Amino acid sequence: MAEMVKVAVDAMGGDNAPAEIVKGAVEAANENGHVKVFLVGAENAVRRELEKHSYKPQQIEIVNATEIIETAEPPVMAIRKKKDSSIVKALQLVKNGECDAFVSAGSSGAVLVGGQVIIGRLKGVERPPLAPLIPTEKGTALLIDCGANVDARPSHLVQFAKMGSVYMESVMKVRNPRVAIVNIGAEEEKGNALVKETFPLLKNCPGINFIGSIEARDIPAGYADVIVCEAFVGNVILKLYEGVGGTLIKKVKAGMMTSLRSKVGALLVKPALKETLKEFDLEQYGGAPLLGLKGLVVKTHGSSEAIEIKNSVLQCVTFKEQKINDKIKEKITLEDE
Amino acid sequence: MAEMVKVAVDAMGGDNAPAEIVKGAVEAANENGHVKVFLVGAENAVRRELEKHSYKPQQIEIVNATEIIETAEPPVMAIRKKKDSSIVKALQLVKNGECDAFVSAGSSGAVLVGGQVIIGRLKGVERPPLAPLIPTEKGTALLIDCGANVDARPSHLVQFAKMGSVYMESVMKVRNPRVAIVNIGAEEEKGNALVKETFPLLKNCPGINFIGSIEARDIPAGYADVIVCEAFVGNVILKLYEGVGGTLIKKVKAGMMTSLRSKVGALLVKPALKETLKEFDLEQYGGAPLLGLKGLVVKTHGSSEAIEIKNSVLQCVTFKEQKINDKIKEKITLEDE
Repeated sequence: MAEMVKVAVDAMGGDNAPAEIVKGAVEAANENGHVKVFLVGAENAVRRELEKHSYKPQQIEIVNATEIIETAEPPVMAIRKKKDSSIVKALQLVKNGECDAFVSAGSSGAVLVGGQVIIGRLKGVERPPLAPLIPTEKGTALLIDCGANVDARPSHLVQFAKMGSVYMESVMKVRNPRVAIVNIGAEEEKGNALVKETFPLLKNCPGINFIGSIEARDIPAGYADVIVCEAFVGNVILKLYEGVGGTLIKKVKAGMMTSLRSKVGALLVKPALKETLKEFDLEQYGGAPLLGLKGLVVKTHGSSEAIEIKNSVLQCVTFKEQKINDKIKEKITLEDE
Repeated sequence: MAEMVKVAVDAMGGDNAPAEIVKGAVEAANENGHVKVFLVGAENAVRRELEKHSYKPQQIEIVNATEIIETAEPPVMAIRKKKDSSIVKALQLVKNGECDAFVSAGSSGAVLVGGQVIIGRLKGVERPPLAPLIPTEKGTALLIDCGANVDARPSHLVQFAKMGSVYMESVMKVRNPRVAIVNIGAEEEKGNALVKETFPLLKNCPGINFIGSIEARDIPAGYADVIVCEAFVGNVILKLYEGVGGTLIKKVKAGMMTSLRSKVGALLVKPALKETLKEFDLEQYGGAPLLGLKGLVVKTHGSSEAIEIKNSVLQCVTFKEQKINDKIKEKITLEDE
């Protein structure tokens, strides 16, 4: 029998905690018998939610945590002071080896800082990037880094390219993933200081399939599998994806409501349209892994519902089964010698 | 009688030159009797296109230019060497005061560099930003800077905020335009080094209505009128707007073609949808002004068709009539004392 994958879940994190978090965790356990979920949070509240569902008791365990880190709290201070918060207790479980991974819809800052401070980086990793999957016309692409390390240096971006390649190859099963750096033109001499310095390093980096610069316009078209950028730019890309998508869909809906003729049409196209647009819904893809840690941390949207939590927990299983961290260590250290 | 506004148009720039450029210029002249257009480019080719249209001869003049600057050419070198190119000759017309403004769909690099080198900056302006209008749910917003000055300093961003405010107030008639800086979180302490340093300067800057940080997600929703950012980030925002928009509309169309039911619906919603989505088409808004020069330079998309050229030429009229450059000079120098 395969070993159980143990996942700590922040039962108190996000706008829909604990109800949707508990629901998603139970769904993941019910879908995959090799998962054991540790629901970390206020015991009574979590138990009340659990009672609404059916599950195998050996797959779910509650770990009591009396404090909650709020989104607005300065992360470093919160991690240091709130020792009995769901985030700190869950991260401790991963650090101690009691869990393999941690999933949270809570404070991004606290999860990112806590992951680095409590779990710690893999040997050789300079900065752990946050790397969400984003939808493209051809499937998905990994946006790396997307909020963990602003003002990164060229050597960090090279490591992001390596870690992202491992992830897309082993978790998403993309053969020889195409790596590109976000730039403001296709030519090598274009860009800001960071990109100009990083470009030749990526070009000469063994073990990755670097295809050059990518303009933001070409990201949704699916021209690359691993989109390398500094965290500020990555965060802008991720959030604009959501923003433009949301606004356009609103416009489409409003456009359909302008005449009787179009209203009738809207009723007819609705089911097909809903199905297609689902592919462009970021929440379908589970959370964003924080790569390069001794253990896995997955950050989901603050607005996560059960489906995203479930997908994120199941993502942890693939991550462990594919021994991603061993592969990252290998790629990082091999080429650094 | 009002003074004529004289606009030099790069007849050879862009994918659809000279046909669409000439067509757009003629349309602008026919729509506004106070415009005189100078079509700069290969005389014979331009004349052949002109012969296809009706116009008042006193409103259109051809200025022969025997060279063309290609998009791929390094801009500084091209501007220096190709003295008889349409871009250099048109910029000379503005420099000499024979024209008030210049519109080009040609090489962005050459237009930006040439504008600064040949026409020159207004007194007090450190760096002239490129500032396109982008569509939002509530109308439009000015994205400033969007490609002219990568690796800008905080003082540049403050000037962008001032120039953008003048533009939105005087050209777009937005009262007391809301200025925001692109950031990765709403709180003042968030951001990269540039944003953290710029934030307090904007907060204390008189003469602008600074409302704080804006996350990329909230740009399409129309939370601000002047979106201040460094050029690399601005370029990513502009191009991703186009990219996500294009991909989503493709998805919507494909979604409507998946069943007989939805195909019938598509026929019914199409006209209404087309009308609504037009508001989200960047090309409807004319080109992007390069602000802060002694004269106006407007850069349009490389793929510009007649409508964008026409709108850009007409934009130059408003710009001159509203005495934008006087207002910019006033705002920049006043607060610097």
